[in-house]
Amino acid sequence: MSAIQDEIDEIDTPALHRPDVYDGLADAVRELLDATVRTRIAAAEVEALTARLRGVSRELLVDAHPGSLGRVRGADEWGGNPANPVDGRRNAFAQPLQIHRDYENQRAAARFSLGAPYEGPPEHIHGGVIAMLLDQVMGMVPAFTDTPRMTAYLNVTYRRPSPLMAELGVEAWVDRIEGRKTFVTGRIADADGRTTAEAEALFVALKPGG
Amino acid sequence: MSAIQDEIDEIDTPALHRPDVYDGLADAVRELLDATVRTRIAAAEVEALTARLRGVSRELLVDAHPGSLGRVRGADEWGGNPANPVDGRRNAFAQPLQIHRDYENQRAAARFSLGAPYEGPPEHIHGGVIAMLLDQVMGMVPAFTDTPRMTAYLNVTYRRPSPLMAELGVEAWVDRIEGRKTFVTGRIADADGRTTAEAEALFVALKPGG
Repeated sequence: MSAIQDEIDEIDTPALHRPDVYDGLADAVRELLDATVRTRIAAAEVEALTARLRGVSRELLVDAHPGSLGRVRGADEWGGNPANPVDGRRNAFAQPLQIHRDYENQRAAARFSLGAPYEGPPEHIHGGVIAMLLDQVMGMVPAFTDTPRMTAYLNVTYRRPSPLMAELGVEAWVDRIEGRKTFVTGRIADADGRTTAEAEALFVALKPGG
Repeated sequence: MSAIQDEIDEIDTPALHRPDVYDGLADAVRELLDATVRTRIAAAEVEALTARLRGVSRELLVDAHPGSLGRVRGADEWGGNPANPVDGRRNAFAQPLQIHRDYENQRAAARFSLGAPYEGPPEHIHGGVIAMLLDQVMGMVPAFTDTPRMTAYLNVTYRRPSPLMAELGVEAWVDRIEGRKTFVTGRIADADGRTTAEAEALFVALKPGG
């Protein structure tokens, strides 16, 4: 391929869908987020590093999507939002989850481990982060593939604290479907298989164009 | 104060509680998180900027708290976690909320606005982020001041989508208290006062040392 063709491809390919380009950047910001929470270097050094980060932001924003990526994707393009705060690859707070989808049993599952930036009670995951993860994975059961839907309710029960920096599992499955309504159950379990949190959610499919 | 005294203060003051030093750094990472989501600059430039960010992380980690800040604070020091993912000043994903506490009416309230990194449905806030915010603010009603407690359950009902990049309000109040159990109601409303999400939660105070 010629250099000119390369250049055209670069312009034409929506920047949104270029994990090869932006994943490394997001990973670096993910590291920074963690380092910023944990660092204890001296004040004088922090100031200089802060200035360097502001310089990088300015360069990234020389050409940027205005507003959010949803505006770029459009209201119809629902899935695979790279900015998603729970599992978006371009969102440095998000944990890009390797979701295992079991189509036969209408089940989604993933393993994950969270560090310092996700702490609520000392050495445990923030209850709100637990709710956020459940909402995301419960909305990813195979029944929903590519179907725009809204969460109608999400009820989370906390059984025991979820430890930080430990492997945890999250899974979700369809409980029942009634027309546009899908009732989903989800849970988070520790490495010993003990449930730390469980949830029930109702998702309602949007009407076409709705 | 002498330069030596300055130096001693710098060593003795727990770095954890130095917003003057670390707030600017976290703000810069917050900008970066947003810029990383929205940028569309060319691949070649991204690579160089990524390398610069990794350099800053290395310098921040030259001296850093191992593990999470909860370990530094200790199990008894509950409130004011600067790493808190919802409102911690040192957490670049968090939105440091100006919480208004009404002690007479056992109520907490804050206004907020979220941008590109918090998107779920196109141009609206992720339902999991809504749940996370409610959990945090509902856990901040005056009844809980300095009391270690766990969320037992959090039930969120979504009434309508919460718009991105718009001023929203979140409020929470004590519904009733039964011994160690406090039942709290919360809601998020748009600028017109319409409820976008509401929630009920049960918080259980931990026994001393528990």
